[in-house]
Amino acid sequence: MPSGKISMEHGAGGEQMQSLIGDVILRNLTKTSAGKVGLSDLDDGASITVDKSNKFFEKFNISDKIELVMTTDSHVIHPIFFPGGDIGKVSVCGAINDLSVMGARPIALSSAMILPEGFSISDLEKIVQSMNKILEEVDVPIITGDTKTIEGSALDSIIINVSAIGICDEPVCDSGLLPGDKIIFSGFIADHGISILTKREGFDFSSDLESDVAPLWNMIEPILSVKTKDGKKAVTAMKDPTRGGVADSLNEMAQKSNIGIKIYEKLIPIRKSVATSCEIFGLDPLEIANEGKAVIGVRPEYAKQVLEILKKHPYGKDAAIVGEVSNEHPKKVILESEIGSTRYVNVPTGDPIPRVC
Amino acid sequence: MPSGKISMEHGAGGEQMQSLIGDVILRNLTKTSAGKVGLSDLDDGASITVDKSNKFFEKFNISDKIELVMTTDSHVIHPIFFPGGDIGKVSVCGAINDLSVMGARPIALSSAMILPEGFSISDLEKIVQSMNKILEEVDVPIITGDTKTIEGSALDSIIINVSAIGICDEPVCDSGLLPGDKIIFSGFIADHGISILTKREGFDFSSDLESDVAPLWNMIEPILSVKTKDGKKAVTAMKDPTRGGVADSLNEMAQKSNIGIKIYEKLIPIRKSVATSCEIFGLDPLEIANEGKAVIGVRPEYAKQVLEILKKHPYGKDAAIVGEVSNEHPKKVILESEIGSTRYVNVPTGDPIPRVC
Repeated sequence: MPSGKISMEHGAGGEQMQSLIGDVILRNLTKTSAGKVGLSDLDDGASITVDKSNKFFEKFNISDKIELVMTTDSHVIHPIFFPGGDIGKVSVCGAINDLSVMGARPIALSSAMILPEGFSISDLEKIVQSMNKILEEVDVPIITGDTKTIEGSALDSIIINVSAIGICDEPVCDSGLLPGDKIIFSGFIADHGISILTKREGFDFSSDLESDVAPLWNMIEPILSVKTKDGKKAVTAMKDPTRGGVADSLNEMAQKSNIGIKIYEKLIPIRKSVATSCEIFGLDPLEIANEGKAVIGVRPEYAKQVLEILKKHPYGKDAAIVGEVSNEHPKKVILESEIGSTRYVNVPTGDPIPRVC
Repeated sequence: MPSGKISMEHGAGGEQMQSLIGDVILRNLTKTSAGKVGLSDLDDGASITVDKSNKFFEKFNISDKIELVMTTDSHVIHPIFFPGGDIGKVSVCGAINDLSVMGARPIALSSAMILPEGFSISDLEKIVQSMNKILEEVDVPIITGDTKTIEGSALDSIIINVSAIGICDEPVCDSGLLPGDKIIFSGFIADHGISILTKREGFDFSSDLESDVAPLWNMIEPILSVKTKDGKKAVTAMKDPTRGGVADSLNEMAQKSNIGIKIYEKLIPIRKSVATSCEIFGLDPLEIANEGKAVIGVRPEYAKQVLEILKKHPYGKDAAIVGEVSNEHPKKVILESEIGSTRYVNVPTGDPIPRVC
C-alpha cells in the first residue's frame, strides 16, 4: 500500500499527479468505463455509449449512434475574483471546455458549492451571476446543485464543483493525433495563470492583462463539421490546456497517440506582457494554465480551413498553426527556438502557480 | 442584492438553506431545466428528456421514452472514518441514492477530490477501496474524475464530490404524493448522524451503533415494477432523508405535493440506542441524517406488497409503514405520539449535527 503524504505537486497536473491517480485511484477501481472513453484514458472527460452494446440501454430502442460525455472539476482558485473573471466563470467554462474539446455539445451542468462560514453572500451572488452569463452565452442550463457550509476555521474560501453532460456522435480523443497533422493553438497562451499570479502578488506591471477564461463551445462547434473525403472529422484530437499548460497537454497527446510533436517558438501566440512576466518570475509560459484555449490536431490538408473558421470567432481570432505531428521521436514534444535550436518540452513536474483552477 | 455572511445554518438542509438557494442562486439563474425535473424543483436530482422535445437531441432518432437523471453532492464529513463507513462510501452511496429515489438506474459516476497538503496517501487508498466496494455492489463505474491539492492551512480534510447519471423512463418526484398514499420508512432512522456524533465526541455508550450508509438501488429497483391497474408506478414519491432527516424530507414532500402527511410515533423504526442518544443530547431523531434510507409514498392498495419486497432486501428488512397522506392540513406534517397527542413536525431550522455528509 502506498504511504506518504499528499504534497502540492500531487495536484499540479504533471507527473506526480499522474502517478497518484494511477497507483492510488485507478489501481483500486475495478469499474471505470461505460463507453468509448473511460477513467483510465485520463482524457478531459469520459463517455457513455447510448445503444444496445451498453447493458443499461438494452431495453431502449435507439437506432442512432449517440455518445454522452461526462466531465467533473472542482475549483479552489485564489483569489476568487481576478482580472477577466472569477471562480464562478472558471468553473462553468471549465466544464463546457472539457466537453467541447471532446467534441460534445454541453446539454446540462450541475453545481456543488462549499461555503465557509463567514463568506460574503453578496460575493456569492456575484459568482452566481457570472456563472449565469456563461450559461446564457452557450445556451446550457445548470439543472441540479448542492450547497454545503463548513466552519471558517476548516476552509479558507469557496469551492465550486461543476460536472457536466454533453452529447456527440463520436468523441474526439486526445489520443487521436496522426502523423502529418498540424497543431493549432486557438490563441495567446498563459494569460490565465499570469493574470492570477500578478493579481495575487499585487504586481501591476501587467495591469491590462486579463485571464482568458471563456467558454469554447461556440468556437469549436463549427470546426467539428469540417470532414475529410472519407467522412471523418478533420480534427483528430483536442485538449483543454489548463493546469500544466500546453506543455502538459502536448505531452499527453504525444504519449497517448504514440507520435512525436514539434512546435516552433516563433509561431506560438503569446502576449508581450505575458512573455515579460514569465521572464521576471522565471516561468515557462508553456507550463502556465489557460482557461479559454484549445490545443487542436487537424489533418494537414484541412488545417488552413479550420484555422480560418477559428479566426472568425472572437475567442479564436489569434489562433495559429504552431507545429506538426510526425513519426519521429514518438511520445516526445520538441520545441524549435527562434534561433533554430531544439529542446524537449518536458511534462511539468510541479505546479509553477498553485490554485489557478 | 442580499448582504450578510454565510452561517452554518445555510448548509443545514432546512429553511435557511432553502432561502439562500432561492434568493441568491435560483433568482440569478435563467437556464435551469433540460427535462421534467429542473433545478427549481429542488428534488434529489434533475432530469434530461432524451427525445425530439429536447433541442439537443433533435437530430437523433430515438423512439423510446428515456429520461436521464443527474445528481451532484460534495462531502465534508468529519471524521472521515466512522463506524460503518467513511467519506468515500458516503459519497458514492449518496449519488446512487439520489438517483435511486428518483427511480433511475445509476449508469455512470464522476469523482472529484480535493486533498489538503499532508493528507495521508494510505488513508486516500482506503477511501478509494471503500468507494470501489459500492461500485461493485451496484455494478456502476466511476468514469471520470478530478484531483486538486490545496495548502494544509486552507482546508482541514479531504472533500469529495460525486456526480452521477442515471436512466429511467419516467422520474419519481418528491411532489408525487396523493391523498390516501401510505408512507414507508425503509428502516431504522437517525443511525448515521448519531454514529458520527458519538464517534466525534468520543462517547462509547453506543459502541455497537454504526452508520446506515448503504447504496439503495438494488433495494429500490424491484419496487419500481409494482404497477397499478392503469399501468402507473404504485410508488408515487420517494426521498433520500440525509441532512435534515425524515423531518425535512416529509415536509418537502408535503409542500410540493400539496397534501398533508400524518405519521405515528409507535410505527417509526428506531433503535433503542439511537433513541437514548437523542434523549441525552436533546436531539429530535426525525431531524437527524440518514445515509441508507428512503422515505417512500405508495398507493394504499399496494403498500403491503411494496413493504414485503423491501423487507426481502437486507437494507429494507426493518422497513415499516409509518403513516399516510390526506387532504387534511395540506403542506403540513403531523406526528401522533405514542399516547395519542399530536404535534407538527417542523422543517428543521438549523443543523443539529454539522458535517455529517
